[in-house]
Amino acid sequence: MSGGGGDGGRRAMIPVALVGIGKIARDQHVPAIAADPDFELVAAVSRRGTVEGVAQFTDIDGFLADGPEAAVSLCVPPSVRTEMALKALAAGRDVMLEKPTAATLGEVEAMREAARATGATLFATWHSREAPGVAAARDWLGRRRITSASIVWKEDVRRWHPGQAWIWEPAGFGVFDPGINALSILTAILPGAFRVEAATLVFPANRQTPVAARASLRGTGGYPVSVDLDWLQRGPQTWDISVETDGGRLVLSEGGARLTIDGAEQLREAEREYPRLYRRFADLIHARESDVDVSPLRIVADAFLIGRREYGEPFVD
Amino acid sequence: MSGGGGDGGRRAMIPVALVGIGKIARDQHVPAIAADPDFELVAAVSRRGTVEGVAQFTDIDGFLADGPEAAVSLCVPPSVRTEMALKALAAGRDVMLEKPTAATLGEVEAMREAARATGATLFATWHSREAPGVAAARDWLGRRRITSASIVWKEDVRRWHPGQAWIWEPAGFGVFDPGINALSILTAILPGAFRVEAATLVFPANRQTPVAARASLRGTGGYPVSVDLDWLQRGPQTWDISVETDGGRLVLSEGGARLTIDGAEQLREAEREYPRLYRRFADLIHARESDVDVSPLRIVADAFLIGRREYGEPFVD
Repeated sequence: MSGGGGDGGRRAMIPVALVGIGKIARDQHVPAIAADPDFELVAAVSRRGTVEGVAQFTDIDGFLADGPEAAVSLCVPPSVRTEMALKALAAGRDVMLEKPTAATLGEVEAMREAARATGATLFATWHSREAPGVAAARDWLGRRRITSASIVWKEDVRRWHPGQAWIWEPAGFGVFDPGINALSILTAILPGAFRVEAATLVFPANRQTPVAARASLRGTGGYPVSVDLDWLQRGPQTWDISVETDGGRLVLSEGGARLTIDGAEQLREAEREYPRLYRRFADLIHARESDVDVSPLRIVADAFLIGRREYGEPFVD
Repeated sequence: MSGGGGDGGRRAMIPVALVGIGKIARDQHVPAIAADPDFELVAAVSRRGTVEGVAQFTDIDGFLADGPEAAVSLCVPPSVRTEMALKALAAGRDVMLEKPTAATLGEVEAMREAARATGATLFATWHSREAPGVAAARDWLGRRRITSASIVWKEDVRRWHPGQAWIWEPAGFGVFDPGINALSILTAILPGAFRVEAATLVFPANRQTPVAARASLRGTGGYPVSVDLDWLQRGPQTWDISVETDGGRLVLSEGGARLTIDGAEQLREAEREYPRLYRRFADLIHARESDVDVSPLRIVADAFLIGRREYGEPFVD
């Protein structure tokens, strides 16, 4: 698909198509691609959404059959993402996926198989891992012994997902839709496998996905990690990860935009998550490599697998 | 741990300890070890159960500290299995595990990490894969194009698990405790990843795990697999897997003991599952290899993750 090498030391431009033109595509993907020297947006695939100045297709089949040769960035919901990814990978297209990669772990495996079969690059993104404080947190923690960690992720679903029915349906993940962002940071800043020892999932009596969850994990070596997710938080929103170590207490707050150690602010920056994701996608394409990490999704699946179910008030939007 | 090579072409005897002396240990493991020329049972670890003629320990810590140098075969429930496996692997012991390996996928990852760290052999067994018809089914299917498959696994929980409360608690898996045996056969006779497209789990109103489940899977290439699990089957019990191909219909019934193709019986034998598992464990130890396949557990986790929950009659033992 993409040429490595290039003329005069410059890398070849990568044509890319955006699939699913909704809010996240317009707010994040279109500007990130426009600002990236390695990518050129050449097509938009969407039933209704359009992007000015590029070829338009209403479905992935039409694009793959008649569209330009281009990498594919999928911004569609998990429920339709896997089929589209499998088709694009089978056609040898390099593919970048929004989090949470897929609705199930088996779908991720199927995508990996498809990418291996054609040699295509598959990049399963976790945008929160690109938050400003994450890399510095990983570096600092890599030199310490971990004694415990905690995640507190509390936001107001009515504010962030007004009227979105799919998040309450099977495969919508409920409060784990934001919570998996926290888990993607946890698994990026601390090494090794996390195992879910116990979990409690609170389902609104009229819904199929949880509105709150608590979980007890263990990191490699046995330190405890507590997870507290809530989707009914009014007022200030909380997106905090704390890690206790033999060398002090690290806190990533504001979703990873702010880093403090023993209360002293180390870093606080505006996020540039999507520009960083496209930089990484370009690097993977040029190196002919893939990057697919299921560990955040595995923690969610394990929490559903062994979680104790409790029932709360019906949820009305 | 174990010596490869050997004297005069014979392999060195492998001392083995059985952990968890309950019904499955007495009925299956003790006789299989006794009949195996490669193994010698040297210790039993159990709070109450004993095996005549071998060293006894009441817990894994005492055994690892003071017991003989020996491989470890774990026949304890999933809820305590992981901690014991991690301790044994950290001590460099070769470990064999009963199905379903662990309560979560994260636990399996942690065990893999521990085995890699010490170079120990880890064998995560799926006893149903050793059923008499499985190998012949895999061979026959390997030469055909698959068009669809179905699993019907219906048994009477009161007959097979009388009074066992843990199967109804979180991490007990409910009807997936027997159902995972079918999934272990499915994933052994057909290659590639299976993805769960939809599932319905029926929970007794007073229990934490499902008493029945239906799921729609897709195999590699897209053929459909229907799964129908029921734990309230009176009368004849059903453990059938059928596969439709371009070359006819294959049916594994009686849990894999009977194989028919287009209705003609190919094979019907008494099972020798545990002797075969110990043969394989010996081969893995001598080759210094591990065998850990999470694919059956991944299907179960995916079914819990995206399954629609329904509620049925309370279950009373």
